[in-house]
Amino acid sequence: MFNKILIANRGEIAVRIIRAARELGVQTVAVYSEADKEALHVMLADEAICIGPARSAQSYLNMNNILEAAVATGAQAIHPGFGFLSENSKFARLCEEMNIKFIGPSAEVMDMMGDKINARAEMIKAGVPVTPGSEGEVFTSKEALEIANKIGYPVMLKASAGGGGKGIRKVSSANELVAAFESATAEATAAFGNGAMFIERMISPTRHIEVQILGDSYGHIVHLGERDCSLQRNNQKVLEESPSIAVGHTLRDKMTAAAVRAAAHVGYENAGTIEFLLDEASGNFYFMEMNTRVQVEHPVTEFVSGVDIVKEQIRIADGEELSVRQEDIQFRGHAIECRINAENPKFNFAPQPGKITNLFLPSGGVGLRVDSAMYTGYTIPPYYDSMIAKVIVHGENRFEALMKMQRALMEFEVEGLTTNIDFQLELIADANVIAGDYDTSFLGNTFLPKYLAED
Amino acid sequence: MFNKILIANRGEIAVRIIRAARELGVQTVAVYSEADKEALHVMLADEAICIGPARSAQSYLNMNNILEAAVATGAQAIHPGFGFLSENSKFARLCEEMNIKFIGPSAEVMDMMGDKINARAEMIKAGVPVTPGSEGEVFTSKEALEIANKIGYPVMLKASAGGGGKGIRKVSSANELVAAFESATAEATAAFGNGAMFIERMISPTRHIEVQILGDSYGHIVHLGERDCSLQRNNQKVLEESPSIAVGHTLRDKMTAAAVRAAAHVGYENAGTIEFLLDEASGNFYFMEMNTRVQVEHPVTEFVSGVDIVKEQIRIADGEELSVRQEDIQFRGHAIECRINAENPKFNFAPQPGKITNLFLPSGGVGLRVDSAMYTGYTIPPYYDSMIAKVIVHGENRFEALMKMQRALMEFEVEGLTTNIDFQLELIADANVIAGDYDTSFLGNTFLPKYLAED
Repeated sequence: MFNKILIANRGEIAVRIIRAARELGVQTVAVYSEADKEALHVMLADEAICIGPARSAQSYLNMNNILEAAVATGAQAIHPGFGFLSENSKFARLCEEMNIKFIGPSAEVMDMMGDKINARAEMIKAGVPVTPGSEGEVFTSKEALEIANKIGYPVMLKASAGGGGKGIRKVSSANELVAAFESATAEATAAFGNGAMFIERMISPTRHIEVQILGDSYGHIVHLGERDCSLQRNNQKVLEESPSIAVGHTLRDKMTAAAVRAAAHVGYENAGTIEFLLDEASGNFYFMEMNTRVQVEHPVTEFVSGVDIVKEQIRIADGEELSVRQEDIQFRGHAIECRINAENPKFNFAPQPGKITNLFLPSGGVGLRVDSAMYTGYTIPPYYDSMIAKVIVHGENRFEALMKMQRALMEFEVEGLTTNIDFQLELIADANVIAGDYDTSFLGNTFLPKYLAED
Repeated sequence: MFNKILIANRGEIAVRIIRAARELGVQTVAVYSEADKEALHVMLADEAICIGPARSAQSYLNMNNILEAAVATGAQAIHPGFGFLSENSKFARLCEEMNIKFIGPSAEVMDMMGDKINARAEMIKAGVPVTPGSEGEVFTSKEALEIANKIGYPVMLKASAGGGGKGIRKVSSANELVAAFESATAEATAAFGNGAMFIERMISPTRHIEVQILGDSYGHIVHLGERDCSLQRNNQKVLEESPSIAVGHTLRDKMTAAAVRAAAHVGYENAGTIEFLLDEASGNFYFMEMNTRVQVEHPVTEFVSGVDIVKEQIRIADGEELSVRQEDIQFRGHAIECRINAENPKFNFAPQPGKITNLFLPSGGVGLRVDSAMYTGYTIPPYYDSMIAKVIVHGENRFEALMKMQRALMEFEVEGLTTNIDFQLELIADANVIAGDYDTSFLGNTFLPKYLAED
């Protein structure tokens, strides 16, 4: 096993990885920006190295500084977490060149799946269903209009190099298309240095269902079931659960088999997620994209499958075989995650950085987990993502999980900041959410207007 | 289901019960002494009623005040937790008379099992092995000497009404017996108002192995496997684990079958624990006593069995059937609990009450649970038990659980008080503990002298 790994991330996921490494007997190196001197991941790691100023481009995205830190500390591997450099194949390649193991898939697979158009083509070859859409990259609005007219409206325009909701537009009819294309391609050029787009038929109403997979370097691939991540606001997930109430046994078998086929086709190694759109009425599902890294919502899968995904990532990168075979994995109960953000839901979800004057994290009892990087007295800096904690619960069934989540959120106190805890409490008390009757438009189009109309 | 229950306890177990009730949709009433106005269980409950001054006899043991609180708030049931009134059959009877459900077994069964001599006789009838010993209560040292000479030394003298380590003496030879008997019977008279003793052959070396059982009012009884609680100091448990490394499949089947037989024989209802002494060399085991209440160490069983014991207690008391059948219960992995006390291990474990100026509870990742009633700014009063938290971990195997416990204890910070966290860290790093090679004398006779001899 590695003696020492570097964690090229911050916040709760950095803390999560440090904890997993420590439990494996692996030493840890934290890296941090000047704004993160007092961060929990810095305190918990065995060593910590400052890699630059607060702005991510100068620190958490600064490949040279991170690689120098790895060399200086003798780290044998780098875990990129999610976001930042986690899906950057150039970084994975640099690690390889420096003989540092990148804890993730190979740079080639990242390239293949990171490019949405390539990924579509590969999925078609693997026999995985994809939405009707453009065959390759689209660079002009004229070309886009022709394609959209052919596949039928509504369509989605998506940046080929996209992610995080950037460069995405929904287009309902031909007369909206040109303007939407121009603004999306400009946004994509600004965000990713690449304005190439692709076009897909929009499936609506739809659920976002994703399948977690793990692959090792011996060609073994297993799935850990699905997650339902349909409760989203502006393409950002808010609450995730496993299993999905919309997925029965037969559909689950089909979706997980497709995900395993997809991963096998590209020779996938390490943890990854195949995201599907599910048309609930027909039971048809379509490949959306593959995330070649650990996901924010991985803990719901850990609860229902009993597999520690982050430990598995480290072991796989170290050349070990998967610790579980598909037939060993027993799914049990129901898990739900609520993302807790420092934001004001009543004020357009504006981020609310600041000092935590008093903190009480829910804990205790059966089936509750809080992943967080907070502590009393910690100041949340304004430079990064507003997610400050994840509350994850596990019940024998979905109802028990919802009751447990309510109990946990009622206990949770973060003094000094505004958070979305009350928003989440209202969300899990909503009749549609309790019934599991929601699609990807529900939170933004139905729940949020009601929430904002209150007092 | 009950609308409202009262929790006749304090500290982490009161918090644990409030959380379970809330997750079942049941309202909760906390009771508290004047010293506990600021306690977490008071804050978390839906209602809270002061039941008297700090001293337990005037508050947590004050049956009238507790029953008045239940009547005043309309509580339909009382959960006694552990300690205090949890094994007091008079209290259970008073509850019954007032038409308030006592969440535990019937007063008759408590009487039968609470009297150690009766319990022995019943176990013999049930075909459960007991240690060679006196047939009935022993009142004089002369009588005691005759019996001890017959069964052979070493023997244990135990108060018939005993508990909590009081009125217990180990006697190695005939010439120690008279003095030991006189002092033990005097201690028992002072503590329990009853000087009756009984005598058992002392099995040594021995492991303390206990089996968790659940019974409902329809005659169903299940076991949830065993716990190894051999790491004790002065008969107080320090670290518990499940399964026991000393119990193989065949022995487990025998011990759990004996426990189920014992519970069935007395028509046991609710959660209970059958404690056995295990002679590891021969594989013989002997009934020690039955605890007719939830145990401090119940969470290790919850982790390996997946059953929420406290919720099950409330449901059983409400007249529901057990939610699991024996064949549904699947045991998974290995769980360990460390009791965290506000005490100074270097100074004879003297209690260390005081104000918590800063608190960081370990959290996050897979298989970690902390049950506690602490928060930053809370002052631990000097009147009660020194246990302030329980750290419980669950791993795929014992080694992973030990690594996880180390990680958790290293993160745990309680500023303002002295605790036994470092003591527990050294204990889990001890070669014998890592190997699972310990008996009930190990902690006091082997580990502690080494620990105290350091620096």
